Amino acid sequence: MTLDAVLAKIDENLPQATDRLLDLLRIPSISTDPAFVADCDRAADWLVEDLKSIGFDASKRPTPGHPMVMAHAQGTGTHVMFYGHYDVQPVDPLDLWDIPPFEPALENTDKGMVIRGRGASDDKGQLMTFVEACRAWVQVHGSLPIKVSIFFEGEEESGSPSLVPFMEENAQELTADVALICDTGLFQSTVPAITTQLRGMLTEEFSLRGASRDLHSGMYGGLAGNPIHVLSSLIAGLHDDTGRITLAGFYDDVPELSDEIRSQWQNLAFDHASFLGDVGLSVPAGEDGRTPLEMIWSRPTCEINGIWGGYTGDGFKTVLPAEAHAKLSFRLVGQQDPDKIHAAFEAYINANLPDDFSVDFTAHRGASASQMATTNPVFEKSRLALSDEWPQPGAYGGCGGSIPIAGFFKEILGMDAMLIGFGKDDDAIHSPNEKYDMESFHKGTRSWARVLAALAQ
Amino acid sequence: MTLDAVLAKIDENLPQATDRLLDLLRIPSISTDPAFVADCDRAADWLVEDLKSIGFDASKRPTPGHPMVMAHAQGTGTHVMFYGHYDVQPVDPLDLWDIPPFEPALENTDKGMVIRGRGASDDKGQLMTFVEACRAWVQVHGSLPIKVSIFFEGEEESGSPSLVPFMEENAQELTADVALICDTGLFQSTVPAITTQLRGMLTEEFSLRGASRDLHSGMYGGLAGNPIHVLSSLIAGLHDDTGRITLAGFYDDVPELSDEIRSQWQNLAFDHASFLGDVGLSVPAGEDGRTPLEMIWSRPTCEINGIWGGYTGDGFKTVLPAEAHAKLSFRLVGQQDPDKIHAAFEAYINANLPDDFSVDFTAHRGASASQMATTNPVFEKSRLALSDEWPQPGAYGGCGGSIPIAGFFKEILGMDAMLIGFGKDDDAIHSPNEKYDMESFHKGTRSWARVLAALAQ
Repeated sequence: MTLDAVLAKIDENLPQATDRLLDLLRIPSISTDPAFVADCDRAADWLVEDLKSIGFDASKRPTPGHPMVMAHAQGTGTHVMFYGHYDVQPVDPLDLWDIPPFEPALENTDKGMVIRGRGASDDKGQLMTFVEACRAWVQVHGSLPIKVSIFFEGEEESGSPSLVPFMEENAQELTADVALICDTGLFQSTVPAITTQLRGMLTEEFSLRGASRDLHSGMYGGLAGNPIHVLSSLIAGLHDDTGRITLAGFYDDVPELSDEIRSQWQNLAFDHASFLGDVGLSVPAGEDGRTPLEMIWSRPTCEINGIWGGYTGDGFKTVLPAEAHAKLSFRLVGQQDPDKIHAAFEAYINANLPDDFSVDFTAHRGASASQMATTNPVFEKSRLALSDEWPQPGAYGGCGGSIPIAGFFKEILGMDAMLIGFGKDDDAIHSPNEKYDMESFHKGTRSWARVLAALAQ
Repeated sequence: MTLDAVLAKIDENLPQATDRLLDLLRIPSISTDPAFVADCDRAADWLVEDLKSIGFDASKRPTPGHPMVMAHAQGTGTHVMFYGHYDVQPVDPLDLWDIPPFEPALENTDKGMVIRGRGASDDKGQLMTFVEACRAWVQVHGSLPIKVSIFFEGEEESGSPSLVPFMEENAQELTADVALICDTGLFQSTVPAITTQLRGMLTEEFSLRGASRDLHSGMYGGLAGNPIHVLSSLIAGLHDDTGRITLAGFYDDVPELSDEIRSQWQNLAFDHASFLGDVGLSVPAGEDGRTPLEMIWSRPTCEINGIWGGYTGDGFKTVLPAEAHAKLSFRLVGQQDPDKIHAAFEAYINANLPDDFSVDFTAHRGASASQMATTNPVFEKSRLALSDEWPQPGAYGGCGGSIPIAGFFKEILGMDAMLIGFGKDDDAIHSPNEKYDMESFHKGTRSWARVLAALAQ
């Protein structure tokens, strides 16, 4: 049978497939940092060459930022557009890494073999599962069972500034029957999942200014306002005692769970004690009266992602600083509008700023939440294909993260997007010592081979 | 007359005296940063050599930290022990300096000629006013009019860890009739002042930890606690709505002003609008119901001097960090006990720490407030000498800063300390573009020559 030979080829290819992934991981394609522009370009070139070697008509497409990679294979039947991103997160704090983040290595751990390095899981390892599945199909049969196109982005970790313009300019080329996105995880690290609900995101960066220069805290302390103190009070005031966010109208467009989804999620029996325990925590710290799964999948959040001000070096400096800064992000759900939330945030800061203080909002960027309709038959075909590969049957689930591309496929191109990924909760994406389990890489590749076969039926 | 010739010599020496100060300012003696250990040593050597050239028996004294400089001149009559410090504050943020901070330069400004560079005012320029006064006396008369000893420290800006042990071990050598300290300012930049009231200080540094590693704010946001948010709430809670500090028992040992001091300070007619206006502020931001002069001279404070956590680089990283950090300092008054305040601070943090969070208190250091008794006749003699030099008569005033050495002279050696300095409010000490007015340097030197003459009477 056609599929069995492909799966056998994937098993046979595993060592070389791993080498190819290690090769890609060695390229430090950090998109947010201008120092790595050439590396991002190099990662795009690497992918174009690799896709050409499998017979794709692949090319690098310039943008005002990092390039896109587009590739098309000959084929008939259902047309899928696969999306992944080749850029990675910054690596600080570097001293918490056990290996240099761009010198990836295989490591035998208690839980099995892992591939360790920045991007191993998010998203180079994940996108290569699809590429390796295509390679095996082509090696065994000379072609793919359906029509496949590939679209790789290089700015996912830095807000995707070029994405929407590129999609609008290349709408025809990017349109297929369905989009496939590999940037999510297994449910609880064991259950294969199709993610049908994603949170949106709004990022904010702002600076408070008080005096015209740094002051001596002895000469001025007690008389002049302190911007770190003001910033702390503003941040503290963003949540009330029950964990709810205080911005005016923030919950206006936040829906309650439908009975159907609530029942689905109850069946998933999320083990929050183990989810938290893996990272040294024990107590759900979110909104009163919400289940842990609601907290991460269906409730909006406001997180402070970075703060700095005053003297932060060794020793002590009794400075009363002129400025203080913060980066924060809102995860959005339901119909929350990023522009409306941004306006409410600015209004909150301005309304609570003491006399003599000014604020600069230096950057903000937003994307709405996504909710997939699973009525398209590709969803159920794919869920069954996943059930064949893994010990437990496939499930429909939510994801607390934000993958704006899913919404863009729908809004700009009118396509459904199906999110299937093989990351595990302990992959430490965005953190030191990121890894991807060899099991995720191997069974992920086999899963895509099965999904391609299923979509050909 | 004896004094007139000395004053004329000071006028004649001004260009060479300025060159000597510029020479000393070129040594980057930042005591808090281990990278500058050799430079601190070099600054001590420079002072030893300069004092020897005026006939002092001067030597560098090792400590576990930066060395002390001790010097004694032959003489009779009143014995004064002059104190200053040769170390300086760090220079960040470097991009706000108009010149490299250790390439000092003369600059002609709207308000007259200034000497610009780190340490120009705090405290190299100030301590050299005394050295230059001694030089002129020796050049004119071959000796000083009273017995003079000098004691320079190199750790004043980094908490003076070696000071108390050194004073205890060298108590006999350090004891004189009165200590002179030149590390304060003119009142409102115009009135020569003897500072008789100083705030004490307690510095604290601490780190909060939540999860065992940095988390992805999409995967965990809303469920896992955020240490920056917790830190902000703790900082915000240190003050209530009226600007009072909330630590238990914090105000127990804070006295109200005596009627005598209240009346003295009212006579000073402090122009807080101009004091704040010079640094771009307009509104006193301290405790409700207190005068601006109380806020900076006689009320305790709690200032956040530095804060950091999460991603602070360019671009954005949706991290939910594992740690957040702060440095803060309390200015103390009256009989407030630094150890007691430290205990109340630790208790406050521990009592308000959410589940799953831990705290490390990594450093704290304290010194009590000082109040000088002006009954020793040297005070009034010196105030009159200052009145002769400056357009307005000398005044007794307070100082919001902390100069622990004044308390140590009293507690360890039983000596009164007289604080006379010539800094101006706009000197930008501890800030970018620190400067010392040429008027401060020149008339400061002449002031000390007059004080030495007055104490010989």
